[in-house]
Amino acid sequence: MAFDADPYISKTPGFPKEGITFYDISPILEDREAVRKAMAALAELARPMDPDIIAGIDARGFLFALPLALDLDCGMVMVRKAGKLPGELVEQSYALEYGEARLSIQASRQLEGKRVILCDDLLATGGTLQAAAQLVTTCGGILAGAVCIIELTGLKGRDRLDCPVSALQTYEF
Amino acid sequence: MAFDADPYISKTPGFPKEGITFYDISPILEDREAVRKAMAALAELARPMDPDIIAGIDARGFLFALPLALDLDCGMVMVRKAGKLPGELVEQSYALEYGEARLSIQASRQLEGKRVILCDDLLATGGTLQAAAQLVTTCGGILAGAVCIIELTGLKGRDRLDCPVSALQTYEF
Repeated sequence: MAFDADPYISKTPGFPKEGITFYDISPILEDREAVRKAMAALAELARPMDPDIIAGIDARGFLFALPLALDLDCGMVMVRKAGKLPGELVEQSYALEYGEARLSIQASRQLEGKRVILCDDLLATGGTLQAAAQLVTTCGGILAGAVCIIELTGLKGRDRLDCPVSALQTYEF
Repeated sequence: MAFDADPYISKTPGFPKEGITFYDISPILEDREAVRKAMAALAELARPMDPDIIAGIDARGFLFALPLALDLDCGMVMVRKAGKLPGELVEQSYALEYGEARLSIQASRQLEGKRVILCDDLLATGGTLQAAAQLVTTCGGILAGAVCIIELTGLKGRDRLDCPVSALQTYEF
């Protein structure tokens, strides 16, 4: 069940900085029919990856990760930015499109032997998802795939991920 | 359909700083049965508030806002921290339990005359939700309620909100 997400994605050139166009999923979220269709379509992309756990990426990946987990009868874990999670952490540094950052998963999460799907709103250069993928494998999880609402295909982010990658909507840049 | 969330909430004293206990909903999320029951119970709390829109609070409120919106046949809007949203914004400053911050909603979101429910993981002093409530009314929305997974009742955060407030699980501090 395909869903044409483009009419529900706003484009803001020059945000958050010059030379970047920000693709914003806010209009999808706001429309109750559109968001239902978008989530159903995302679940169809994720289902063949046969996940046990959906790993939502801080912060916009959190939006979609739990609806996906509920639809596919999975659990969900948070992949968070530095300083946000309590307890013992597994951490991974990475370069952003504009800056540098660190991601973490709690060591107490049970990913050993589980099939884990990464979930974010946008795949651009792939730096964030690559770091999240490394975290998943460090925690003993099986990287089963990655799903996004939007993929910027010209940035070739999927080449940095050693797993199936699916997106609802693609743009070149 | 009540749900005993306490066994799925981890408590970390001294995080993020001395004197604060961090209540962490990660174990709920990870357990596919628990998270399904928790979301069903949260939807039961939210349903009588008769919402049109669920406003998810950055970042952990994002986890629950969309499942709730889908269950209650609503749309969802993001209430975000400063610097995260593109376009024209409506903003509100507020004092945090540990620091100060600013929240924003996009001016292009359609809240005029809509019944809006705030959704976050935790109600503590209520500063964040109070600021979010002000944003909703500034945008012309009707503040129909607030739902959280956890409420720290001893901090009396609900007294700062002029709407019905419901939580799955309460602790004194």
